[in-house]
Amino acid sequence: MASTQRSPRIAVGPRPDDMFVRAVASGGGITVSLEESPDALIWTSGPDTFPAALPESVRWVQLSSAGVENWLTEGIIKRHPRVLWTSAAGAYSATVAEHALMLLLAGVRALPHHLAASSWAPEEFYPHLGTLRGATIGIIGAGGIGRALIPMLASLGAQTLAVNRSGRPVPGAVETFPVERIDEIWPLADHFVISAAATPDTEQLVGAEELAAMKPTAWLVNIARGSLIDTDALVGALTAGTIAGAGLDVTDPEPLPAGHPLWSLPNAMITPHDSNPPALRVPAYVERVVENVTRFASGVEPVAVIDVSAGY
Amino acid sequence: MASTQRSPRIAVGPRPDDMFVRAVASGGGITVSLEESPDALIWTSGPDTFPAALPESVRWVQLSSAGVENWLTEGIIKRHPRVLWTSAAGAYSATVAEHALMLLLAGVRALPHHLAASSWAPEEFYPHLGTLRGATIGIIGAGGIGRALIPMLASLGAQTLAVNRSGRPVPGAVETFPVERIDEIWPLADHFVISAAATPDTEQLVGAEELAAMKPTAWLVNIARGSLIDTDALVGALTAGTIAGAGLDVTDPEPLPAGHPLWSLPNAMITPHDSNPPALRVPAYVERVVENVTRFASGVEPVAVIDVSAGY
Repeated sequence: MASTQRSPRIAVGPRPDDMFVRAVASGGGITVSLEESPDALIWTSGPDTFPAALPESVRWVQLSSAGVENWLTEGIIKRHPRVLWTSAAGAYSATVAEHALMLLLAGVRALPHHLAASSWAPEEFYPHLGTLRGATIGIIGAGGIGRALIPMLASLGAQTLAVNRSGRPVPGAVETFPVERIDEIWPLADHFVISAAATPDTEQLVGAEELAAMKPTAWLVNIARGSLIDTDALVGALTAGTIAGAGLDVTDPEPLPAGHPLWSLPNAMITPHDSNPPALRVPAYVERVVENVTRFASGVEPVAVIDVSAGY
Repeated sequence: MASTQRSPRIAVGPRPDDMFVRAVASGGGITVSLEESPDALIWTSGPDTFPAALPESVRWVQLSSAGVENWLTEGIIKRHPRVLWTSAAGAYSATVAEHALMLLLAGVRALPHHLAASSWAPEEFYPHLGTLRGATIGIIGAGGIGRALIPMLASLGAQTLAVNRSGRPVPGAVETFPVERIDEIWPLADHFVISAAATPDTEQLVGAEELAAMKPTAWLVNIARGSLIDTDALVGALTAGTIAGAGLDVTDPEPLPAGHPLWSLPNAMITPHDSNPPALRVPAYVERVVENVTRFASGVEPVAVIDVSAGY
């Protein structure tokens, strides 16, 4: 990207909210409207309200979500091949990793069973109580969230086996498996965190066979996208006790309808896609906007450029 | 302690369980019965079944609990002033610290509210969702557990304010307060973990005034002893919403009777003193026995000598 000689003119949509206008200014940009031939567009909402056509002048669009599968499937990104698209991938990693750790710890320490109790009976819990100390955690998809999780797990004395596309060693993981060898990990790790992007390749990555290969004491946490797990197979495994339990911030279908069996299973914890709630998400996105506007204004490529062929 | 010229003769009671007999052998000792003039006694149970009188030959007694207030109040330790008494303080620190972190994270991320839900309504949770990232945690009593917790919190981006007797800086804490200045910490920290020994000085350390001084978003975790918190005051604060919630592995009274208000408060999490369950506790105690028998056999003072005047 060539260095811009003047302050970049940046539109903020769908509404020019104050905090984003300030973020643009902090990054060295000037906020203009979409009608004023902006160089870039900072988008703070989902694909539904996105403009049908972008002005020719727009060279960069910043999106506010870390996962962008909807933007790809709806063809919005492909419709603008000359525009550089960036996601917020990585901006929320620490927040979501903390939530994943919470679900994992709560599972391993049998918190759902405890909260259902109304009398003092420690013996009832003893068979269900584990620890992350000395445990091996399989991290499926070692992007920003997975990488943020590794040092948190290490501080608790757990070790990590990572799975990614390439098999290129993930820093801090004991071993990194390329996705072709993913089947090796199910019987090997004690617990799992799903943190891969939702792509056609990762759809129903965890199904009946994978669940059957896990240890009966395994907790499965999903903070990525619901589509990565075969929900019916999961309900079956949780009902049969094939695995110990699941902590799900995302589900398929999502929203999970009232009356779905996952709501009443004692070994399922559901958080309604709130691992990255507005109070934490907005300031993190503001920070990312400042960083990327600064880069754009200096002619440096913004972070988290979307790779259309990879799907994230 | 003078170096012993021969392998120390060590009794294991109340029963000479295999794993402890093996631990004594691993440490260089020989297991004998209490009637065979042992040099030391490894005790694997509570004070109730402890011998009324110890053989004159016994110079050291190893106890299996980290907190020894019952042994002190029942006068067992004072009755044998020439014996060196050691607790298991520190042996279970990492396990209990992990449990404390679990309760803290589950509270801050509103897991109890989530588990009570049966429909997808993220907006309901948004006002209650916090993070440990950037939060300040007050650790009251920076012994083994508190010190084990600090790096776990640091890995999540939280900082620690510690309180101990002396005010001597605790490694990793941003600031350490001597107990005389404890009142400064209640409005200052975001959340609290109680990890101090139960002594006459720490009884009801947290009462109505302390709870009133905390932030309304504060979570209070107790993994020490129930006596450190005024239970009625806590029930009042949880009911009124003066603080966000509490995670209690220990209670006063303990066991917490059925029907006690703490069982039904939606912002109280009770785990029945199982932060250190047998499956984790026994191997950790075996390790400590090996370590201390090794030290005793070599004439080196065993770790965690009980200080009768301090009360732990």
